[in-house]
Amino acid sequence: MSNFESSKWSLVSGGITAPYGFLASGISAGLKPSGNKRDLALILAPKNALCAGTFTQSIVRAKCIDLCIERLLETVGRVRAILVNSGQANACTGLRGLEDSVIASKAVAEKLGILESEVLICSTGVIGQPIPMQNLLKGLDLLVNSLSDQGSNDAANAILTTDLIKKEIAIESYLGGRRIRIGGIAKGSGMIHPDMATMLAFLTCDAGLPKKVWDEMIKRVVHSSFNAITVDGDTSTNDAFLAFSGGDPLEEKYFNELEIGLKLVSTALAKSIARDGEGANCLLEVKVEGAQSLRDAQIIARTICSSSLVKTAMHGCDPNWGRIIAAAGRAGVLFSQEEVSLWIGSFQVMSKGLPIEFNKNLVVSYMNEMVRVNDSKTDKLFIGLRIGDGKYEALAWGCDLSSEYIHINADYTT
Amino acid sequence: MSNFESSKWSLVSGGITAPYGFLASGISAGLKPSGNKRDLALILAPKNALCAGTFTQSIVRAKCIDLCIERLLETVGRVRAILVNSGQANACTGLRGLEDSVIASKAVAEKLGILESEVLICSTGVIGQPIPMQNLLKGLDLLVNSLSDQGSNDAANAILTTDLIKKEIAIESYLGGRRIRIGGIAKGSGMIHPDMATMLAFLTCDAGLPKKVWDEMIKRVVHSSFNAITVDGDTSTNDAFLAFSGGDPLEEKYFNELEIGLKLVSTALAKSIARDGEGANCLLEVKVEGAQSLRDAQIIARTICSSSLVKTAMHGCDPNWGRIIAAAGRAGVLFSQEEVSLWIGSFQVMSKGLPIEFNKNLVVSYMNEMVRVNDSKTDKLFIGLRIGDGKYEALAWGCDLSSEYIHINADYTT
Repeated sequence: MSNFESSKWSLVSGGITAPYGFLASGISAGLKPSGNKRDLALILAPKNALCAGTFTQSIVRAKCIDLCIERLLETVGRVRAILVNSGQANACTGLRGLEDSVIASKAVAEKLGILESEVLICSTGVIGQPIPMQNLLKGLDLLVNSLSDQGSNDAANAILTTDLIKKEIAIESYLGGRRIRIGGIAKGSGMIHPDMATMLAFLTCDAGLPKKVWDEMIKRVVHSSFNAITVDGDTSTNDAFLAFSGGDPLEEKYFNELEIGLKLVSTALAKSIARDGEGANCLLEVKVEGAQSLRDAQIIARTICSSSLVKTAMHGCDPNWGRIIAAAGRAGVLFSQEEVSLWIGSFQVMSKGLPIEFNKNLVVSYMNEMVRVNDSKTDKLFIGLRIGDGKYEALAWGCDLSSEYIHINADYTT
Repeated sequence: MSNFESSKWSLVSGGITAPYGFLASGISAGLKPSGNKRDLALILAPKNALCAGTFTQSIVRAKCIDLCIERLLETVGRVRAILVNSGQANACTGLRGLEDSVIASKAVAEKLGILESEVLICSTGVIGQPIPMQNLLKGLDLLVNSLSDQGSNDAANAILTTDLIKKEIAIESYLGGRRIRIGGIAKGSGMIHPDMATMLAFLTCDAGLPKKVWDEMIKRVVHSSFNAITVDGDTSTNDAFLAFSGGDPLEEKYFNELEIGLKLVSTALAKSIARDGEGANCLLEVKVEGAQSLRDAQIIARTICSSSLVKTAMHGCDPNWGRIIAAAGRAGVLFSQEEVSLWIGSFQVMSKGLPIEFNKNLVVSYMNEMVRVNDSKTDKLFIGLRIGDGKYEALAWGCDLSSEYIHINADYTT
């Protein structure tokens, strides 16, 4: 992870339980059809921890999301626990969806000796399917008893649906002589079984921050990480990102450094979700620079990253720059096409609006290595676009679009 | 075409040369790599005809589009001819793109004895490739000499790139005892060879209308037809729709009836483009009703129609309603999920926000017939969504997303 090299943060093990005071657990409660996979997770934050939440922008959302939003407001962010079930999204299940979420969180609160309003609940799985509540309730004792400061790995596994890889990270740094750690786990949209598209991510941090500062910081972090990825442009009914700040207050002069760390963790999780997109063979990274505003740069980068024509061209290792420039052109941002320069990897293919000669074999071989050969977690297929001499730039991440995506999403019934 | 049954318009042959006074031709000028396919078309409108144009919204557009816009302004819509070449998009070719467009239109004007500013030019094909001008110029004599009131078929073939089917239609009606005809041809995005994604459509009508009325009418018609289709969400550098009104003035009391006819022609062409989308097996029709505004209904319908998850589910004949409702939810339009009812074909699968029992076999068999068996040009896979008790409704059209799309767009290099 090259970003880390230039920062004051270093990777450590322990995921979301690496930060001081956080506990987690993950068990199999028999919610998933397979029966024996972990499918229920619990995260417990220390007293006085503060939680900031970001949720799906979809109008059609699961009742557990409503409950999260309501309780974060009610407690002014002072929640303690997050219960996560995988297997059933519990969305579009009417009043029952809400009732079950309330029952589950109440049971967790009782076992933990905290207030019902201090428990959040996230669900991921098939839309329209309610949670098998008996199994869930039966599993709670084991779940609570398993809480541990080593529990991140189990929790990270329990929130997965059909992701191919577990998504877990932790980093640490010394700010003013004090060790600060940030941890995170996530699940993405590896939808071998359809509808399991929910993106969930949880972050813990053992530095205490004022609520307003934390909320704003998390908003910025989400914007440049989770909001910068796309697998297929579809948004789930259950998407949620919850970030805890818990522990002694951090001195204000270290806020910037902490935000760098939060971005590192969130970006790493976001990229691992993109890389593990359905049928994906590679991580696609698009950088747009020279824009007149950050928003302009972000919109163009995300439009290129989500273009089916670009994604299929990348999958086919085809340096088909016309599609990239066409996607940029329809992004809804004003720029002069006479100013555009374009790179695939380190190979420039367009300069000031005109195609330039390039060694196609070399570019294809670069793309081929990224798409077909690559098995590292740090490499990616890079597209760079300069649209002018503005000072703003932005990154977006996605993946290639393969036949496997179609098979996963269409042919499973046959 | 069931729509026609309830209208005063009936199908006739003759395409864009069915309306009185319009001539067309289409020849092979050796522009396409294959060499012998028709690749150059010409449409000639009668004197005093009026042309309204709609063009790609992309910032990155071909110079021929700039030229069209400039000349429509300069002549206040009084252009006479459209030259169309297929094979090269002539986009991202710098100053040369403009020069070649000017040279070609000037040569056409001379041969027709009209002003250079009265000639428009549209190009479709590979981005970054200039037109082989020698071949084009050499072909102009034959092209002009072939102009005929039977020439629509040749023109319709000459504008295709890799479309699988020709797109041509004409209708007529008697308005106040006078025979009025409307004709149209189009090409879509059958991109067996990548980058040939341009949508071009041309319409002719032998009823004369005031400029302001014609411009406004065409704007409304485009919004409910060409702007309501999607194949993969990508927009080309060269998209254009040009509509001629030529002939004696039409009485104002028939304007509404004429607009119905214009919509019938444009919608039929638009749907044939969607149906002939890359790798498509069926036309997907999404109807959203009960909305608070037309815009709300259109946005939701188009979002569903362009969702990769919906498109793959339809391809897989999977009545996976969760994806449809999830796409509706992320469309950015406010509605209450408790009010939503959903149909696949005539089968209701959701009522007032809750899933309802349905015979899955029957629904799958309906979907299967539409996707796999269907070879008619009138059938389509239908999705209906009622989101409330508002009075607005809208239609959108698209196609299923198949492995063939990936193969067409990615695997051609291997």
